[in-house]
Amino acid sequence: MTTIDILKKARAAWPALQSANTELKNAALCAMADQLIACRADILAANALDLDAAKGRISDVMLDRLRLTPERIAGMADGIREVAALSDPVGAVISRVERPNGLVIERTRVAMGVIAIIYESRPNVTSDAAALALKAGSACVLRGGKEAFRSADAIVRALQKGLEAVGLPAELVQLVQDTTRQSANDLMTAMGLVDLLIPRGGAGLIRAVTENAKVPCIQTGTGICHVYVDVAADQAMALDIIENAKTSRPSVCNAEEVLLVHGAVADAFLPKLKARLVDGRAAKGLTPVELRLDARAARIIDGTPAGDRDFDTEFLDYILAVGVVDSADQAIAHIAAHSTGHSEAVISEDPAVLDAFARSVDSAAVYLNCSTRFTDGGEFGLGCEMGISTQKLHARGPMGLEELTTYKYVVRGHGQVR
Amino acid sequence: MTTIDILKKARAAWPALQSANTELKNAALCAMADQLIACRADILAANALDLDAAKGRISDVMLDRLRLTPERIAGMADGIREVAALSDPVGAVISRVERPNGLVIERTRVAMGVIAIIYESRPNVTSDAAALALKAGSACVLRGGKEAFRSADAIVRALQKGLEAVGLPAELVQLVQDTTRQSANDLMTAMGLVDLLIPRGGAGLIRAVTENAKVPCIQTGTGICHVYVDVAADQAMALDIIENAKTSRPSVCNAEEVLLVHGAVADAFLPKLKARLVDGRAAKGLTPVELRLDARAARIIDGTPAGDRDFDTEFLDYILAVGVVDSADQAIAHIAAHSTGHSEAVISEDPAVLDAFARSVDSAAVYLNCSTRFTDGGEFGLGCEMGISTQKLHARGPMGLEELTTYKYVVRGHGQVR
Repeated sequence: MTTIDILKKARAAWPALQSANTELKNAALCAMADQLIACRADILAANALDLDAAKGRISDVMLDRLRLTPERIAGMADGIREVAALSDPVGAVISRVERPNGLVIERTRVAMGVIAIIYESRPNVTSDAAALALKAGSACVLRGGKEAFRSADAIVRALQKGLEAVGLPAELVQLVQDTTRQSANDLMTAMGLVDLLIPRGGAGLIRAVTENAKVPCIQTGTGICHVYVDVAADQAMALDIIENAKTSRPSVCNAEEVLLVHGAVADAFLPKLKARLVDGRAAKGLTPVELRLDARAARIIDGTPAGDRDFDTEFLDYILAVGVVDSADQAIAHIAAHSTGHSEAVISEDPAVLDAFARSVDSAAVYLNCSTRFTDGGEFGLGCEMGISTQKLHARGPMGLEELTTYKYVVRGHGQVR
Repeated sequence: MTTIDILKKARAAWPALQSANTELKNAALCAMADQLIACRADILAANALDLDAAKGRISDVMLDRLRLTPERIAGMADGIREVAALSDPVGAVISRVERPNGLVIERTRVAMGVIAIIYESRPNVTSDAAALALKAGSACVLRGGKEAFRSADAIVRALQKGLEAVGLPAELVQLVQDTTRQSANDLMTAMGLVDLLIPRGGAGLIRAVTENAKVPCIQTGTGICHVYVDVAADQAMALDIIENAKTSRPSVCNAEEVLLVHGAVADAFLPKLKARLVDGRAAKGLTPVELRLDARAARIIDGTPAGDRDFDTEFLDYILAVGVVDSADQAIAHIAAHSTGHSEAVISEDPAVLDAFARSVDSAAVYLNCSTRFTDGGEFGLGCEMGISTQKLHARGPMGLEELTTYKYVVRGHGQVR
């Protein structure tokens, strides 16, 4: 089936979901979770074929991400049940006004319609994304990476059995069958068939979508996150936050990539930074962080001289660009010029600096005296998330269920004319 | 100055507005209104040149839209003062959670940054759009129609004097100097320089933006609005609403273009419709409505046979496409297939039909027993508006000040790590 045919089937199936109540949607999600478990053998067999085909062609890290086990499938089923337990965003009245002419105008949260998601090779994204879209009231068309195609296909077949078990159309969750670039392009340009396109992946995918998409889309993910250590910082707190932001999980988008230090404390702070991130970690048998230093930092501690691109790179690795600035304003200006608008932190005990940073830094999440690693749907109390938006339109930061919906105005009258 | 240079200057000027409080923004707006009046002679002189150049090249209706008078300039100044009187959306805390780890997470309404607006030849849009963008905390780059260039340029110079009078940079409101297609294209593709692009104009402009824009944008305007007269309609109410929706101002996007009538009442209702919209109006010396009838309607009353495109056309004229359907569900399905997602109305006394219509019709505004003509920022109680969004992402329906803002998360901690 062509990608366009799949989208048309999703759109045709959507009204059944649009008129489903919360109980039916939750029953569908629970049935989908049950079917994931029931179809475990099929899913593992498909995954084994994916793994065989991928061996030697992708890195061990990627192979591990691709691998499914009975435990991981159970985790995916639990993830779906968690979405069922979240409250339903659809149907809520966001605001209500009664006008002098007697019209009652309700701004009501409603489903998007058809949500398309382009993602890479982690099979669990298939069930996570489908569950979130379904709970948000939308049909879902998934386009995964080709290395995981057989796994994703088996997962989607199981999810479809769950939908059918409660009387909903299987076409509410579909996998694009074409894994070439053409299908991604088809999704990006299917005006009138895709209400929202979400790319989840690396900078290349995000750029391709920004350049080519004609349907509404939300950019996710890329994070060049900054931490600024102010002259008035609690330096012990700063070291804890920086080590956490840089090393607790360097491969994720909310990890720190750039450290800016106020010039008046750089002489005191940078040697402690090196002791903690480089020598201290090595002594403990942990991966030391490679420090890429601007000219001023390099006069204070040893490290790699920073190259042209080091303050504009999402390393996703044990690498940290380090620069010295003369003021909080200079740090804010540096962030404005180099950030991807994801997450930035300031460490300071000076309320004026904290206020200026909170007001002026134009990113999805601004942290005062805490780690950038908290930018996450779970940590924000949203339950699950579909990704982290780095754009300003519609959704910013972690996208939970509400961010996957839209609204419409329902206006009740008794013959009013204008 | 090139369009890109203008955008860069707007972005450089924005931080001064980002840190301005409500009082300063309102003072700027009042000074802008005062300067419009003070510069009236310059504006009228520029407008006279525009009118001379346009005479014979555009229709009389367009010429009238282009014409400024002292009264119209006073009206523009009043419009700016009305925006000053609206409450400031920026800085509001939309939601606040305190997490178990002690983090306080505030979702805070903030300005977009740089808003670009592409519009056509009405000079008053220049001041309206600038005032709304400024109050919403954003710098504003305007690209008007070439027929109104001298007028818009004089208006922008006056507005800039107002900004400077309160110490804000003039570059917060700028007019694109290039009136060729190139400048529109520059705005659509200036990634990183435009936070939001709003096209205000006809279907051709909207389509060009949808096809070509790489920056975030909101589609406005096109409205193929439907009214459905149910079997359980109060037919007298239906006639009042249809006459209002079709004829009170046929050239606007919230005017009715298509009427659907339930087959069980078509024999009774359509002759009354013709008597009211055609013969009755002619007898009163009002413009009669041309009815374009589908095959079933044409068996009941006289009129023009509907052509292939008549149920997919925004007439913006005294023309109404009329079709007969067999049920509310069929009306809902017709609307799903032919609507532009703007405004649709149902006339019925049956609560089940009203509920089904409200739930299933996927448009920005759904009207139960009232006219589609109410889709308007003022009528919805939003104060002024920047246009009517027909997309689902970010803003839907009338866009007031809130819809011109975004939000960010400000997270306060005391050393928390993850």
